[in-house]
Amino acid sequence: MQRIVKSRLITTYHEGVVNQREDLVVTEYPLTIFVNDEEFATLVCTPEHLEELTVGFLASEGVIEQCADLKQVLIDEERGLAYVETHRVNALSKNLHAKRYLTSCCGNSRQSFYFYNDARTVKKQLAQTVSLRYTDCFALMRSMQEEAETFRETGGVHNAALCDQNGILIARLDIGRHNALDKIYGHCLQNGIPLDDKVIVFSGRVSSEVLIKTAKIGCQIVLSKSAPTELALDLADQLGITVVGFIRNRSLNVYTHSERIRA
Amino acid sequence: MQRIVKSRLITTYHEGVVNQREDLVVTEYPLTIFVNDEEFATLVCTPEHLEELTVGFLASEGVIEQCADLKQVLIDEERGLAYVETHRVNALSKNLHAKRYLTSCCGNSRQSFYFYNDARTVKKQLAQTVSLRYTDCFALMRSMQEEAETFRETGGVHNAALCDQNGILIARLDIGRHNALDKIYGHCLQNGIPLDDKVIVFSGRVSSEVLIKTAKIGCQIVLSKSAPTELALDLADQLGITVVGFIRNRSLNVYTHSERIRA
Repeated sequence: MQRIVKSRLITTYHEGVVNQREDLVVTEYPLTIFVNDEEFATLVCTPEHLEELTVGFLASEGVIEQCADLKQVLIDEERGLAYVETHRVNALSKNLHAKRYLTSCCGNSRQSFYFYNDARTVKKQLAQTVSLRYTDCFALMRSMQEEAETFRETGGVHNAALCDQNGILIARLDIGRHNALDKIYGHCLQNGIPLDDKVIVFSGRVSSEVLIKTAKIGCQIVLSKSAPTELALDLADQLGITVVGFIRNRSLNVYTHSERIRA
Repeated sequence: MQRIVKSRLITTYHEGVVNQREDLVVTEYPLTIFVNDEEFATLVCTPEHLEELTVGFLASEGVIEQCADLKQVLIDEERGLAYVETHRVNALSKNLHAKRYLTSCCGNSRQSFYFYNDARTVKKQLAQTVSLRYTDCFALMRSMQEEAETFRETGGVHNAALCDQNGILIARLDIGRHNALDKIYGHCLQNGIPLDDKVIVFSGRVSSEVLIKTAKIGCQIVLSKSAPTELALDLADQLGITVVGFIRNRSLNVYTHSERIRA
């Protein structure tokens, strides 16, 4: 049985008081689906109801139309594998599947480096060349939210900003989480802006992919008003990135490499 | 110049009063990137800073390492195309790109039917076999949120529920938006639960992909506490799906096919 949340020791800050405590973080679990002995897709998911997920995914993708099309579904929870046998192969869906699109939600299915060990584009374990005070974290989050004010009423966009200790350098919005970060990355490459002394401020959840994107960009600190996932925090530990989450009102959590955040 | 928001006529409900007014909705814009005359990827994005997005995306994907690797970037805003020429082709990144992963954020890059006209798995324009009162919308959203209570503190999961007028039938959570819906779909297929008289209640934004998923599942109403995108609403218009968004406190917006929501 996989666990859908895990406990971690974190540093909390609330109205000037710093503490350490155990906190629950959601897991990200990769499930690789094989259809008739061919690798079909890997879903990163919350590890419960994995057979339902497999069946529902294959139906949405048009691989099956009904449960009667399935010969067998075997789930290997330990290894994160689903083996599916179908009575017939839908040739059309197979062709379509070969060509995939990166979509607004996260611009994703960009190959994730924890599968491919894509160390080429991830910067090495980072030195400590930047640090923030707790109060800077709140000020930067507030600035980003003010910057994003214009589109608050329409909802549904992600905001990202590149900052230093003094404030926002550039801010970008996008309906796709990754796109907002890619726009910042592209701007910095085009304008020769160094990144290792900068901080990413992000409106959304710090998933493993947002963390990997931060590492590729080469920033050492990511601030978010939302939650991180456990896989993102494992990667942050290894890559030397400081993750600060739940920055709301006068509270925040420092999840990894707390040495960069000072009183 | 593409517009990043568009105006639509919507039906609003606030504390018992029903009105019609213009409202702004974010656009979803597909940008297809060609690298050295080969189609590389399509990003669905907010249409501003498209050159930055293209450069940042290619750098994150490892296709380029620096701007000097680029010979030319041409953006055709009208047609949603980016033509990129590079000085060298990174063979490794090309190979990696052929194999993609569906990730937690949305489980996506599932081929989207508005690109492929994937009518096979989308049910036909829906008849009206289900309707709700305004007050049902609030009650169902409240039930889903109560159901999700356990994981509220950890943050970062999407909740979806399948309902009828009387309440929740099944609820699923996942870090991936699509996964929560696929789990519901799989459960219904496995248990022979009819879907055309049911309602989807969803915690997240109604993007075009969530709308398409709802259509594939075969539900006629989707309720969300967040915003829809303009592309999702265009599809909902065409497919005959009722989208109700921003269900919060005693207010909500009916965006499409308001005939299914009654006083």
